[in-house]
Amino acid sequence: MNIDMIEAAAGRLDGHLRRTPLLTSPFLDEIAGRRVFVKPECLQHTGSFKARGAWSAISAMDPAVRKAGVMAYSSGNHAQGVAWAAAQHGAPAVILMPADAPVLKRENTKALGAEVVLYDRETESREEKGQEIAQARGLTLVKPYDEPLVIAGQASVGLEIAEQAADAGVDQADVLVCCGGGGLTSGIALALEARAPGLRARPVEPEGFDDVKRSLSSGSISRNNRMGGSICDAIVTPQPGDLTFPIMQRLCGPGLSVTDDEALYAMAQAFLRLKIVAEPGGAVALAAALLRKDDIVGDAVIAVVSGGNVDPMMFNRALITHAGNN
Amino acid sequence: MNIDMIEAAAGRLDGHLRRTPLLTSPFLDEIAGRRVFVKPECLQHTGSFKARGAWSAISAMDPAVRKAGVMAYSSGNHAQGVAWAAAQHGAPAVILMPADAPVLKRENTKALGAEVVLYDRETESREEKGQEIAQARGLTLVKPYDEPLVIAGQASVGLEIAEQAADAGVDQADVLVCCGGGGLTSGIALALEARAPGLRARPVEPEGFDDVKRSLSSGSISRNNRMGGSICDAIVTPQPGDLTFPIMQRLCGPGLSVTDDEALYAMAQAFLRLKIVAEPGGAVALAAALLRKDDIVGDAVIAVVSGGNVDPMMFNRALITHAGNN
Repeated sequence: MNIDMIEAAAGRLDGHLRRTPLLTSPFLDEIAGRRVFVKPECLQHTGSFKARGAWSAISAMDPAVRKAGVMAYSSGNHAQGVAWAAAQHGAPAVILMPADAPVLKRENTKALGAEVVLYDRETESREEKGQEIAQARGLTLVKPYDEPLVIAGQASVGLEIAEQAADAGVDQADVLVCCGGGGLTSGIALALEARAPGLRARPVEPEGFDDVKRSLSSGSISRNNRMGGSICDAIVTPQPGDLTFPIMQRLCGPGLSVTDDEALYAMAQAFLRLKIVAEPGGAVALAAALLRKDDIVGDAVIAVVSGGNVDPMMFNRALITHAGNN
Repeated sequence: MNIDMIEAAAGRLDGHLRRTPLLTSPFLDEIAGRRVFVKPECLQHTGSFKARGAWSAISAMDPAVRKAGVMAYSSGNHAQGVAWAAAQHGAPAVILMPADAPVLKRENTKALGAEVVLYDRETESREEKGQEIAQARGLTLVKPYDEPLVIAGQASVGLEIAEQAADAGVDQADVLVCCGGGGLTSGIALALEARAPGLRARPVEPEGFDDVKRSLSSGSISRNNRMGGSICDAIVTPQPGDLTFPIMQRLCGPGLSVTDDEALYAMAQAFLRLKIVAEPGGAVALAAALLRKDDIVGDAVIAVVSGGNVDPMMFNRALITHAGNN
């Protein structure tokens, strides 16, 4: 992984992915006690940054291989990113989802042009079933994070932040990133290393699911004890990736974690002050920017809102809990 | 009013106002039966396009006059736009609001740096009280729409649309604009006339408050019968402006109107598909783009979402009513 790969990915993305703005609000500055800059990847195609990595991987494939089709395992944002990027390239996409995935997510993924294949979490191995289908049909797997082309695509967020922060006169700041497997965090860290060395990426996770924070702190990969029970499901992964962890270890500042309730608070503030829709997992970095004053260094902080694919009920919960008097 | 004034305003805005993106979603295209492009001015500073016109007017003032301060009558988006733009210029701002305006709006306007002066709707004349204060303190009034510098500022939305539509390969389309007094609509119309003559601005209003639509249809200014009773309060004005109406008459296509419920539907779609927060009055153009298929010409339509300053309760109402099964 180097900056040339990242620049090449950015070149492939150019004109197809959105350059999201960098948003600010004096009200957020007041809460945080420093200037807050928000990179709203919820405004990206398919409602999350995942469209970048998927586009990067699919656009780099040999055309004949691509034509045979791609495959992904995901019930969430990666599924939609791959479905969209494949459709835009005229490539078939098969998404393997658990049979108990929400109907909405299945329908959205289909509507974006993908074929959804269901498997039974109890009785079937996702990997075995996936491999079978992939071999039978000649599909290429697009991994969600532990894949250099995907990391290079997510890194384009970092290139944009480097430019936009410079335009805003910010050359020293923590850049807080919602972190699951680490594809976005490590990609941004690589881009900042090359283009804005005064900016430092830091992963933010839900409390109780802070495998990356603990791994960075101990110096070796540690796992989460459980996978369920967080409303921030989009960024709960078993452990840091084999490729992403060494990058984060070399370049990132210490990890941060926030509670579910703090994520809901950040969703409400994003609604009130920025007029954007954040999902719980997409709001953890903003929550840390607003509420972890003493753990953040400098007079400015940059937070990535990584996605906005949230159910209306959950969004209502954030507003009712935290926007009542505003 | 000519394109030179508009370009001059755009020059003053450059680097201070946000260039909002042009958003799309295949799901919205499907509903509308044509390609839909959304210009989200809810992402502008202060949550609405009003910051553009306010900046244009205040930045053009003689520095000595500006230093004495500005004044506006408004309880809504114009108040916040003027408060913000004045503060950025280091100028005092006095905003006259009815004493029964929501506390939140008062507090927000104050937090943006303005002095809020209340008047009693029943017993005091807003204009008399305003004139008194303005004279005593040497303040300059910033009108909400019937003012060339304000129209020129709002027109910057049209310049951006002209460029962004060309980038998207769209050179023929209706551009639907949420319309109150007509400052945004007439400004966009002037910019499009000069920079994208194949794009045609059309005002969209709430049903029952469609003074501009009726005025355009009859050829002379007609008033609304009442001012209250719409959830789209941000765009309810007594009648088209003396300056804005002739511009709209010369350049705009026929007006459109939508119901309150259709505005709520568009808010829900903006949440689900674009991850942006629209207020009811800011969503009427998108509602028309999605639901007035037969009244719109061409295979693409552009809709301006003019603002996102909506109470959480009203937003919940939109989601509960129209995003329940999504």
